[in-house]
Amino acid sequence: MKLMQLYAAMKSDLQAIEDQMAQTVTSDLPILSETSLHLLKAGGKRLRPIFVLLSGKFGTYSMETLKKVAVPLELIHMATLVHDDVIDDAETRRGQLTVKSKWDNRIAMFTGDYIYAKALTVITDLDKPRIHQILSGSIVQMCIGEMEQIRDFFNVNQSVRNYMRRIRRKTALLIAISCQLGAMATEAPPRVSHALYRFGYNVGMAFQITDDLLDLCGTEKAIGKPPGSDLRQGNITLPVLYALQEDSLRDQLLTEITLIRDTEGPVNSAAAVKLVRSSSGIKTAEKMADRYIAKALKALESLPDIPAKRNLADIARFVAKRSY
Amino acid sequence: MKLMQLYAAMKSDLQAIEDQMAQTVTSDLPILSETSLHLLKAGGKRLRPIFVLLSGKFGTYSMETLKKVAVPLELIHMATLVHDDVIDDAETRRGQLTVKSKWDNRIAMFTGDYIYAKALTVITDLDKPRIHQILSGSIVQMCIGEMEQIRDFFNVNQSVRNYMRRIRRKTALLIAISCQLGAMATEAPPRVSHALYRFGYNVGMAFQITDDLLDLCGTEKAIGKPPGSDLRQGNITLPVLYALQEDSLRDQLLTEITLIRDTEGPVNSAAAVKLVRSSSGIKTAEKMADRYIAKALKALESLPDIPAKRNLADIARFVAKRSY
Repeated sequence: MKLMQLYAAMKSDLQAIEDQMAQTVTSDLPILSETSLHLLKAGGKRLRPIFVLLSGKFGTYSMETLKKVAVPLELIHMATLVHDDVIDDAETRRGQLTVKSKWDNRIAMFTGDYIYAKALTVITDLDKPRIHQILSGSIVQMCIGEMEQIRDFFNVNQSVRNYMRRIRRKTALLIAISCQLGAMATEAPPRVSHALYRFGYNVGMAFQITDDLLDLCGTEKAIGKPPGSDLRQGNITLPVLYALQEDSLRDQLLTEITLIRDTEGPVNSAAAVKLVRSSSGIKTAEKMADRYIAKALKALESLPDIPAKRNLADIARFVAKRSY
Repeated sequence: MKLMQLYAAMKSDLQAIEDQMAQTVTSDLPILSETSLHLLKAGGKRLRPIFVLLSGKFGTYSMETLKKVAVPLELIHMATLVHDDVIDDAETRRGQLTVKSKWDNRIAMFTGDYIYAKALTVITDLDKPRIHQILSGSIVQMCIGEMEQIRDFFNVNQSVRNYMRRIRRKTALLIAISCQLGAMATEAPPRVSHALYRFGYNVGMAFQITDDLLDLCGTEKAIGKPPGSDLRQGNITLPVLYALQEDSLRDQLLTEITLIRDTEGPVNSAAAVKLVRSSSGIKTAEKMADRYIAKALKALESLPDIPAKRNLADIARFVAKRSY
C-alpha cells in the first residue's frame, strides 16, 4: 500500500485526532487559541498519531482510548517545536511563519508551556499510571537531548556516538513510545509493545538522520525552510561529522564552520553546505539511515501478521526515502 | 508559634523535601544539574511544601507519600520562575543572578522545561490518577495566567476584577492545590481537602497582592530585586489600579506609565513608583490582602482542632505582614 493510500484509509480516525487536538488547545484566551491553532493548521506528517493508531491494532482497538494517547503525543511534539523555534531563531517551519516570528519569543514560550500542559490533561484522563510514567520519563529525556544539542553547537570534535545519543533522546524516543503506548493502551501483550518500541526507536533514528540530510540536500520548497539551517545555528549533524573525517575536505570545512560561528548578524552557510554535499558524508549517512530501517523491519518480524504490520513496514520504508 | 519556630519544628521534613528536590533535578548532563541546583540553592520560602506537609497532617501523615506531592509542586513553581525571568528579562531574583542572566535565555527555557518534566516523573510515581488530573489542569490555568499577564502589559484600563482573575491563575491556584493535594494524598476526607483548598486559594491571593505591594514599597535588600520592576515591565498591579482611580494622580501617573512604555533601553520607574506610594492605593490594596487572609482563616474553622490548623493560621497571618 502506498503511503497516500494509507492516509486515505485512516482518514476518519486521523480526522478524529485532528479535531480532538484542536478542541484540546482551544482556550478562553483568544491569543492562546490563535497561536495554538496556527501551529495545528501548519500541519505535519502526524507520524506519532499514525504510529499510535497502527500499534493500537495489535490490542483491542478503541479510538476513545487511543485518542488519549495520540493527541498528547502529537501535542508534546508540537510544544517542543515551538520552543525549538525560539532557540533556533527560526522564521518559518513547514512553509509557515513560526509562532516566535508571527508573535514573539515570550508568546512562543508560553504557547509551548500551554500546549504541553494541555497534553498532560488529556493523558491523565487515561487511568493508566504506567503510561503517565513512561511519558513523563520520556519528556525528561527529550529535554536533556535539547540541552545536549545546545551544548554541542559548533563542537566539530564530537563523535558520531555523541550525535546518535542526542538524536535518540531528541527524536527517536517519542516515536518509540508512540508505538509502545498505542499497544499498551489497548492491552496488547508486553512482547508486542516491546517489539513496537524497538520498531519505533529505529524508525525514529532513521527519521532524524533523514531530516538532517534533507536540511543539507533538500530545496526550500520541499522542506518548508531554507536549507543549511542546521549549520547556520551550529548544529553539527551526521553528514557533516562524516565529511569532517575526509582529509581532503576537513580543513576547508572547519574554516567555513568557524566563519559561520564568528559571523555576527545574518549568516550564509552555502559554502559549508556545498562542501558537505561534495563529500561521501551524504552517502554514508544515507546508509546509516537504511541500517536503522532494516533494524526497524526486523523488529516487526515477531509480530502477528495483521494489516497494520504491513502498514508500519511501508511507513518505515517511506521514512528513509522521503524528500520532505 | 512564631514562623521561625514552625520552620524549626518542621526542619527534618523540609530537609527531606530539599534533598529529594536536589536528587530529582540532578542529571547526567552537568549543565542541567548546574542550572537546576543554582535555582535550588537560591532558596525561597518553600511555601508550597510547607502547605503540603501541614495539610497532610489532616490525613494519615506519610513523608513517603507527601514528598511525591511537595517536591513536584515546588519544582513546578521553580520552573515557572525560570520561564518568568526570561520574559521579565530579570537579572536577579532572591538576590541571586537568574539562570537567564548567568547563562542565557535558551538555557533558561530548557532548564524550565526540564525541571517541569522532572516534576512530573515524581508525581506520576504516585498511583493516584485524580491527583495527576488536578495538577495538570492547574498547570494549564497557570499558563493561561502567564499569557494574560503578557496580554495585559501596560493596559491601564484593565479592571480590578481582571487583575484578580489573573493572579488567581498565576499564583493562588498552585497554593490552593498544595493544600488540597496534601490532604488528598493522605486520604483526608473530601470536606477537609475542600476546606484546605479554599484556605490555600485565599492565602494565595493575599500572597500575590502582598508581593505586588512589596515590589512598590520594599527595599532591594529585602525583596532581592530592584523595586518597581513590575511597572518597568508593564505589569499593572492592584495598588497601581487603585492609584489610577484617584483624580488628582491619574493624569500624572498615566504620563509616567506611557513614558516607561515608550522608553527604549534601560527604564526608570522611580517617578511612577513614588506617585503610587503617595496614593491611597497602597492602603486599599493592603486592606484587600487582609480580607483574603480573613477568608482563609474562616475556611480553617470547620477543620479538626489539631496543631497543624494553628500552624496554617500563623502562616496566613504572616503572609500579609511579611516584608520579604
